[in-house]
Amino acid sequence: MRLKLDISNIQGFLSDGQLSELRREAGEALKRLSSGSGAGAEFTGWMRPLDKGPELELIRQNAGKIQKESDALVVIGIGGSYLGARAALEFVKSPLYNAFDKDTPDIFFVGNSMSPDAINETIALLGDRDFSINVISKSGTTTEPAVAFRVFRSMLEKRCGREASAKRIYATTDREKGVLRAMARQEGYQCFAVPDDVGGRYSVLTPVGLLPLAVAGVDIDEMLAAARGVFERPCAGDTDDPVIGYAAARSGLYRAGKRVEILAAFEPSLRFVCEWWKQLFGESEGKNHKGLFPASVINTADLHSMGQYIQDGERILTETFLKVEKGHGDITVPDMPDYADELDYLSGRSFTWANHQALAATQTAHAAGGVPNMRIDLPDRSAGSFGELVTFFELACAVSGYMLGVNPFDQPGVEEYKKNMFSLLGRPGY
Amino acid sequence: MRLKLDISNIQGFLSDGQLSELRREAGEALKRLSSGSGAGAEFTGWMRPLDKGPELELIRQNAGKIQKESDALVVIGIGGSYLGARAALEFVKSPLYNAFDKDTPDIFFVGNSMSPDAINETIALLGDRDFSINVISKSGTTTEPAVAFRVFRSMLEKRCGREASAKRIYATTDREKGVLRAMARQEGYQCFAVPDDVGGRYSVLTPVGLLPLAVAGVDIDEMLAAARGVFERPCAGDTDDPVIGYAAARSGLYRAGKRVEILAAFEPSLRFVCEWWKQLFGESEGKNHKGLFPASVINTADLHSMGQYIQDGERILTETFLKVEKGHGDITVPDMPDYADELDYLSGRSFTWANHQALAATQTAHAAGGVPNMRIDLPDRSAGSFGELVTFFELACAVSGYMLGVNPFDQPGVEEYKKNMFSLLGRPGY
Repeated sequence: MRLKLDISNIQGFLSDGQLSELRREAGEALKRLSSGSGAGAEFTGWMRPLDKGPELELIRQNAGKIQKESDALVVIGIGGSYLGARAALEFVKSPLYNAFDKDTPDIFFVGNSMSPDAINETIALLGDRDFSINVISKSGTTTEPAVAFRVFRSMLEKRCGREASAKRIYATTDREKGVLRAMARQEGYQCFAVPDDVGGRYSVLTPVGLLPLAVAGVDIDEMLAAARGVFERPCAGDTDDPVIGYAAARSGLYRAGKRVEILAAFEPSLRFVCEWWKQLFGESEGKNHKGLFPASVINTADLHSMGQYIQDGERILTETFLKVEKGHGDITVPDMPDYADELDYLSGRSFTWANHQALAATQTAHAAGGVPNMRIDLPDRSAGSFGELVTFFELACAVSGYMLGVNPFDQPGVEEYKKNMFSLLGRPGY
Repeated sequence: MRLKLDISNIQGFLSDGQLSELRREAGEALKRLSSGSGAGAEFTGWMRPLDKGPELELIRQNAGKIQKESDALVVIGIGGSYLGARAALEFVKSPLYNAFDKDTPDIFFVGNSMSPDAINETIALLGDRDFSINVISKSGTTTEPAVAFRVFRSMLEKRCGREASAKRIYATTDREKGVLRAMARQEGYQCFAVPDDVGGRYSVLTPVGLLPLAVAGVDIDEMLAAARGVFERPCAGDTDDPVIGYAAARSGLYRAGKRVEILAAFEPSLRFVCEWWKQLFGESEGKNHKGLFPASVINTADLHSMGQYIQDGERILTETFLKVEKGHGDITVPDMPDYADELDYLSGRSFTWANHQALAATQTAHAAGGVPNMRIDLPDRSAGSFGELVTFFELACAVSGYMLGVNPFDQPGVEEYKKNMFSLLGRPGY
């Protein structure tokens, strides 16, 4: 595992004794998780990432088919069927992936809102280009993806008829049950399985995330190998295990009265990594009136907006910094001695260096201001780094959930809104 | 004023008696603000939005010149010199403004991070197209915009020399002082003033926001007229004044123990309105270890990620919903009775209707779960609605700050990070 954790900036907020006891507790929780004896153990399939085999081969084959046949892939999904793939695409490729010339299809994420303007814009940008659809829904009845699927299915059907359009539709859904699986059987859609033992927010390294990512040319083999590496880390359960360190520290800070954890990234390409993380931790821990509220900032931009509050607002904050050692490229500040901009002290300096200095300055200032913080170092923006990061977070999240005394794999609170929503939409039976 | 406020979902969290006392207090604060007798009164120039006159005429003329000469405008700024213009562009036009064919130049926002990848991507997307630069910085020494200005200035200079490139550079800066003003004098840049009596986060309706927005074809006259309308609202200071209602309710909820305010939008085009709002409130209130922590969600996407926490996590949350009555268009769910998708109950229904039902369902579910909430209704995504909304928020923010006992116009906590940053970057004198 190349990912590193630094928790030196929580000194002064948790004592060595407290931290050592917290680590012991986290180690116990990790044992329960690994042995399948904790709450929700039936949803720990994500702990066995896909390796060689027919399922991966099927993903690769169909990704190749989509790349050959289509200029764009419309990915329909919400929540766990959306955030992971988008996070990986933006991290490994770019938040502006579609704007660049490339050999792989554009990717449009839809079905993640009910906004008419958002869906109309996607339709306008697709224009008359050839597109395929990957509809991702365990049940097939979740409103947002279901109505978006109708819109884009009807577009395809108008262009080339029901039979031909069925050949362009790829359904990632339950292995046996549900409306979408039934439709897929009837229409003959190529199918991929959402595993029974993996909840939505833990599913990015299953076909849910892997098919669209393979279409976009992300190296899914590297991603999966790195994820497997996390489970095989020699330090697992030890004092220097980053999984243990992160879970122990954040749990301790919560018990010490902190109420908000801010994930602070210093790269716009990590925005959806932060959004994915918010679902992972918020949905896993936010129950029984407990849990750290997950928030995020993208610095240095947000230092100039949220910086004041973090430095000097309510002291209920803890922060976790995400540092990328090396981006896809670098650039230096041009030497322009002729200008009176008083910036010569930075001439020839690289943006990467300045960005890392800003991160260090922020860590120090916030710790001094009463915000304990940690840092996770990623070597680069590779598929492997992404695979490591999400697996690290998933493990630490499950361990944190056990330390909090909740089931990190259910989401009972989402039902309340869904019931109200179905009732207001007039769905039969609600 | 067409904007409306509904606070019926705070019943059960604040009594009528409490609310009435809070309104009285908010009224007093508004009087202090309006009479210029409160803290920071020297920074209330935003209360007199630009009307006819040479400054607006200069903006219009130069916007026309940029539109004629350039395919793209590179807007360099951070914090208050960035978020307002981007919020308006995405709200009134589109978050994907650059992706569409149009008569107006592309707009690239840079200088808002130290990410090498982000700046390299902008350079790649600009390619060899003609571009102009609008550099926005009161002092000219803030690191991020200063280094970005070097990068893009050097690009222009390599293409057409120092003199010709100076004609493509527009500086929005202090009227008299500072590095950027001095450079502009020396090089002959066209200048626009950042007014002395308007802080960064209150500056969107000054030349800071108006020039790039005029270049993008946003109707700045409509925006300013709507802003003036807010100051002339007949209900100002009354019980039914939305400014009073919002400031009173959120202040009361903070005193009642709530610690996080979530701005919940139901349109992706409002994402940067939320980011702008976070700076406005976070930087105005987050001091002396006080203030509501500002967070945001974009629904319905985030109902499927943050929904569980909001419904059932720590009960420290309050929520403010943003509803847009009518977007730029609509779309209906296609009638496809032949398919077994169990969705016929929505056939022919509009997305706008479904989105509004989702919002209503969420308000009810969250209030029932212990999250008091309010709703702000905007008629549409027009420039006028934007002008009203930001002015409404600015007024309510200043009033809230006075109720909290802080100066809503300073930002002492930002200095700590800036000092550390300059020192780590090796700036002379630090």
